[in-house]
Parts: sequence; structure tokens; C-alpha cells
Amino acid sequence: SGKKVLIVYAHQEPKSLNGSLKRIAVEELSKQGCSVTVSDLYAMQFEPRATRNDIVGCLYNSEEFNYGVEVYEAYKRGDLSSDVIEEQKKVQEADLLIFQFPLYWFSMPAIMKGWMDRVLVQGFAHEFPNCYDSGLLKNKLALFSLTTGGTREMYAKGGMSGDIRYLLWPMQHGIMHFCGVRVLAPNICFAPEYVSEEKRKEMLITWAKRLKTVWKEEPIDCSPKWYFK
Amino acid sequence: SGKKVLIVYAHQEPKSLNGSLKRIAVEELSKQGCSVTVSDLYAMQFEPRATRNDIVGCLYNSEEFNYGVEVYEAYKRGDLSSDVIEEQKKVQEADLLIFQFPLYWFSMPAIMKGWMDRVLVQGFAHEFPNCYDSGLLKNKLALFSLTTGGTREMYAKGGMSGDIRYLLWPMQHGIMHFCGVRVLAPNICFAPEYVSEEKRKEMLITWAKRLKTVWKEEPIDCSPKWYFK
Repeated sequence: SGKKVLIVYAHQEPKSLNGSLKRIAVEELSKQGCSVTVSDLYAMQFEPRATRNDIVGCLYNSEEFNYGVEVYEAYKRGDLSSDVIEEQKKVQEADLLIFQFPLYWFSMPAIMKGWMDRVLVQGFAHEFPNCYDSGLLKNKLALFSLTTGGTREMYAKGGMSGDIRYLLWPMQHGIMHFCGVRVLAPNICFAPEYVSEEKRKEMLITWAKRLKTVWKEEPIDCSPKWYFK
Repeated sequence: SGKKVLIVYAHQEPKSLNGSLKRIAVEELSKQGCSVTVSDLYAMQFEPRATRNDIVGCLYNSEEFNYGVEVYEAYKRGDLSSDVIEEQKKVQEADLLIFQFPLYWFSMPAIMKGWMDRVLVQGFAHEFPNCYDSGLLKNKLALFSLTTGGTREMYAKGGMSGDIRYLLWPMQHGIMHFCGVRVLAPNICFAPEYVSEEKRKEMLITWAKRLKTVWKEEPIDCSPKWYFK
């Protein structure tokens, strides 16, 4: 329906469940008339390291390198490296950001964390006091779609790994909410490597079905209550 | 006292507070007679991306690339890439791991997340059911030493960014505790960019003082209670 979606995707293998979840999202959202862009981070060999290379030309302070200060200044001058500018354009145009990834160590794979570190620059995504509800990316939605190694039982409240919501806090609240993005409920596929082919197909069907009505969803209440109640 | 320490350090600028915290730790621990190794990730241009390049030679399953399976098999064959093997040796020898970094988006900078993703391989750091208290790196200690952008007030329990402990969960419990490593209380320097030179010096003195008796410290109770009580 004219909506724009950016899928930031971090898996090395197109034949993986993550690959299928991404493909199905592209298909379903395109069918609805959305325009869908995919940032396939491994295929792009996306650079995760936050370094001096992110600033074209001279530094604001070449005596003592401060990454946050330098990229803020470079953003204002239009002097960020082209790969970062490219991603910022995609974010700017998107109504919905979908992050598709396998959980690595209770968080995103480093390549996706690098996307967050390098793309969501001060001045572009936030600028104090414009953070949280008044972050610069307000009016956008985000949805974390992830697969886990551990089972649903391990990620239950009394489980060995604790409530899965505990580990969503830094990503959903600390990053997206901080930038003003409203967060939809996550899509979590538990332990796909340990279930039947049948079950994995169900995961894909459930995801496709959900996307049919995703634009009618209400964001979660992205406050400690939702995560730690 | 013959103890071995590995400092995994992620800052681009030696003159930064992170650089000073690292330097002071090396000095203080060396003075005690510890042998100290530093992995200076930016200086090493450490690779954060988990890719096929981490496996030397043929794949276990070249039809469908599964990073976790491939590095597990490569570890057993001794076929991980040399930079990963090098880091694993340092971890193996260490009694204490210190992670020194600036908080990026409620977590580690991507370059350090990549160190976790690539170094703490199944077979080396954990192997079900050898995880959490029986993880393969038991008898080691870890200490997260970090600087924040936000103030102590923002990271207080009712503060805008929530209790700082919420965001320590994925790193301390999800990574270190999962590998059997016991976790010492974190060292947190709040908002060093917004305090006086005097205050920053105090932060360094406090850190050096703490390290004098670090071997007598008791690990925290790395369970939900500590983080979310």
C-alpha cells in the first residue's frame, strides 16, 4: 500500500531459515504493494568497525580521535563514508525496519551491531534532547525477527537463559526506542535447528501470516515493564 | 603473583579515557607480578564478521553453510583461522579477562562483539551440556570495564535508560557465565566526556586502587536477581 520497508539481514546462507524468513517477508510485503529494500550485510561485506575511515577528509580534532564527535561533525558536513550514507538514505525512506538475524551470544551478530554503530549517527538518528520518544526517527516502526539456538524452555522466565525479553532490552529499547522508533512485538523462532522440517515450515507460514496485518499492529510499550515485569 | 591477565581492548584512541584505563591496568597488574597480554582490537584490525573465512580448507557441509557447525568442526580439526586460534590461546592461558570498551548502543562496539562471536567457539568455550556453571572456561574470571555516554542518573533504576545492570545481562550472563567464567563486579565510568579533568583522574585512581585487591574479590551472583531485582 505504498509503504516502504527496509530489511536489514545478517545471515551467510540463503538456504538457511533466516534466508527463508527474509525471502518470505520480501514476497509478502511486495504482494501488498510495499516497496521493499534489503541490506544483505554479509553479501555486501558490510564493514562493522567504527574507525577513522568513516570520515571523508580532515578530522574535526586530529589530536585526539573521538568517534562519536567525528561522525557527528562529518554527518553535518555530508562527509560520512558512502556506505554509511547509503544506509542512512534507506532508513530515512523506510516506514518499517525489519532486522532479520540469528541470535549470537544474546544479541545481534557483530556485522549487524556494526550497522547500528555506524549508521545511527548523532544528528541523523538522535540529538539530545531528541532521544527516546522524541528521537529523530520517530514515525518509523521496527521489528526484530530472530532465530535462537536455545529452546523456548531455556528462554522462559525461570529458564537457564532467562526470559528472552531480558535480552531484547538493549536492542529494542537501547537502540530503536532511543532513536524514536516504535517497536513491534518481536518474531522469534526458537531452536529451528532442533525441530522438524514440518515445524520450520510452520514458522515461515506464521511469519507470512503475521505480515499480512503488520500495518494494523500496535507497538509494544517499550518500557521496563514489558521486559522485566 | 604469577597470575595471567588478558585485556581485550576496543578503543581507537590511545589518549582516550579507555586508553588510560587500559594502560593503568597493565601497569598495576604488571607491578603485582602478573603477566598481562593486551588484544588491542582496532590496532589489530580485528575481523568482526563471522564468515566462511574462519574455516581453513574444506567445509564440513558445503551445500548449506552453518557457521556454528562449521567452526565447531574446524575447531576439532585445528582448522580455525589463525587469528581466532591466537585469541583462543590467550584466553586459555588467562586467569582473568578484562574487557575495556566504551558502551556503544547499550552493548559492546561491534569489533568486540565480533571477538566474542568468533573466539568463543563451541568445543572451546562451551559444549552442551557444559554451559553456565559447567562451561569449558570455568576457573576463569571476567571483568567488564566500560565508559558510558549517558550519566549515572540516566542509568539509574527509574532513569530514562533504565538500570545499567539491565544491559549487562547479555554480556555478563549470556556470554561469560554461559562459558563458565565467573564474573566480577563491573567497573563503570559514567559520562567521562561530561565531567571535569579532575573527575576523570579520580576514575583512573579508583580503577588502579581496585585492581590492587582484585584477586581477593568474590564474583557476583550472576543470576536474574542481581540484574533485575
